Amino acid sequence: MTYGVALRLDHGLVFMSDTRTNAGVDNISTYRKTFTWCDPGKSVVTLLCAGNLATTQAVVSLIDERMKAPSDRSPSILGLPSMFQVARTVGNTLKEVISEHAEAGPVGASPFGATLIVGGQVKGSKPRLFLIYPEGNFIEAGSDTPFFQIGETKYGRPILVRAYDRQMSLAAAAKLLIVSFDSTIKANLSVGPPLDLTYYPADSLQPVRQSRIRIEDEYYRTVSEGWGDALRSALDSLPDYPTEI
Amino acid sequence: MTYGVALRLDHGLVFMSDTRTNAGVDNISTYRKTFTWCDPGKSVVTLLCAGNLATTQAVVSLIDERMKAPSDRSPSILGLPSMFQVARTVGNTLKEVISEHAEAGPVGASPFGATLIVGGQVKGSKPRLFLIYPEGNFIEAGSDTPFFQIGETKYGRPILVRAYDRQMSLAAAAKLLIVSFDSTIKANLSVGPPLDLTYYPADSLQPVRQSRIRIEDEYYRTVSEGWGDALRSALDSLPDYPTEI
Repeated sequence: MTYGVALRLDHGLVFMSDTRTNAGVDNISTYRKTFTWCDPGKSVVTLLCAGNLATTQAVVSLIDERMKAPSDRSPSILGLPSMFQVARTVGNTLKEVISEHAEAGPVGASPFGATLIVGGQVKGSKPRLFLIYPEGNFIEAGSDTPFFQIGETKYGRPILVRAYDRQMSLAAAAKLLIVSFDSTIKANLSVGPPLDLTYYPADSLQPVRQSRIRIEDEYYRTVSEGWGDALRSALDSLPDYPTEI
Repeated sequence: MTYGVALRLDHGLVFMSDTRTNAGVDNISTYRKTFTWCDPGKSVVTLLCAGNLATTQAVVSLIDERMKAPSDRSPSILGLPSMFQVARTVGNTLKEVISEHAEAGPVGASPFGATLIVGGQVKGSKPRLFLIYPEGNFIEAGSDTPFFQIGETKYGRPILVRAYDRQMSLAAAAKLLIVSFDSTIKANLSVGPPLDLTYYPADSLQPVRQSRIRIEDEYYRTVSEGWGDALRSALDSLPDYPTEI
């Protein structure tokens, strides 16, 4: 499993992904699931991956290789005129990779599917965020649905629904994501640290800023422990059930 | 889907279940999923159901009919010497019902399975709580795992993990459960109000107390709206992510 979230905010885009991959509970590894590309001043793209690791690695490698061979006729992820075209290119690449393995040959016990989040900005338009399905089609985040989750989405969703605010700072959004991830990590062994945080201030068109958050980091521990106390205080602040028990 | 929770506390047992059943999104109904039996002064049993409605209704009817015909050789759920025996009887009944439909005849699109929570007290021992699987076997809540959830368990779990305290009052526990259910109802259409709250003060050996909580009740609205504010305050009380963003 995996857990990945991307928020669309007035101040920019914030992404977080865990790094655990597993095939069963006895075969776990650590892999980065966030990838970014940038052509400074022109376009910035960030990709979060959930699903079959072979599939998502192939998608990322195809995007990379196409960039490295400009003479290749396939479109590069940079240099496209809009984020819609970026999402379409990534979606088509994902569909191709899955089809290649699914259509013929041995059938794996695990499906070849993957779900991606693509976000970024192309000069001349606003930052945009897309959720890409294994079929290659995709949806865009709007003002009613301003964030996307992939992978093990349920445990960490209530806090996002309650506390997301499009006007929050990127630093507050990073904190919110850590809380959402901490709830998930405490409940599901297949989501695990360290966490990759990526943030893109709107209109900067410069490389995203990234940091890796470890569970033993002081800030993580402060938030994780503080959140337990804060939640209990929050619950205490509400009236008990009124029937005399 | 369904959501049901039972907490084992020092002060007794608290149960909550939703009332929505659905076959697809276009065929929804309201059914009670909490059932209780009591032989005052001797034993009190509460049952929560999740899963195939025909299966769980059959289990409850079999328990009822066995009670109504004392000459029936099958054991009654009341009059058994321990909660372990109660759980075994309910587990065997569940297994029988599922086997009856699964072994022969038409195969339904939906499986016949169900998962149950049984809790209560038999005179002479402490209150006990069991989670019963479709196979008829079961596990008991202990001090490390003092509560059980059935059905759509994920959205409402983080707050239970964080805020459960075995010494909390039954009134505070009812509030905690409402918060857990509210998070789930906001996220999953297949879990819906009204909610059935059942509480059993330890050692009373009297009929459980029950109330039905509607989403338009003032208390529910106070908790639901207050919880959103309280969560945002809780998040604000933690330090933002330290890197300058």
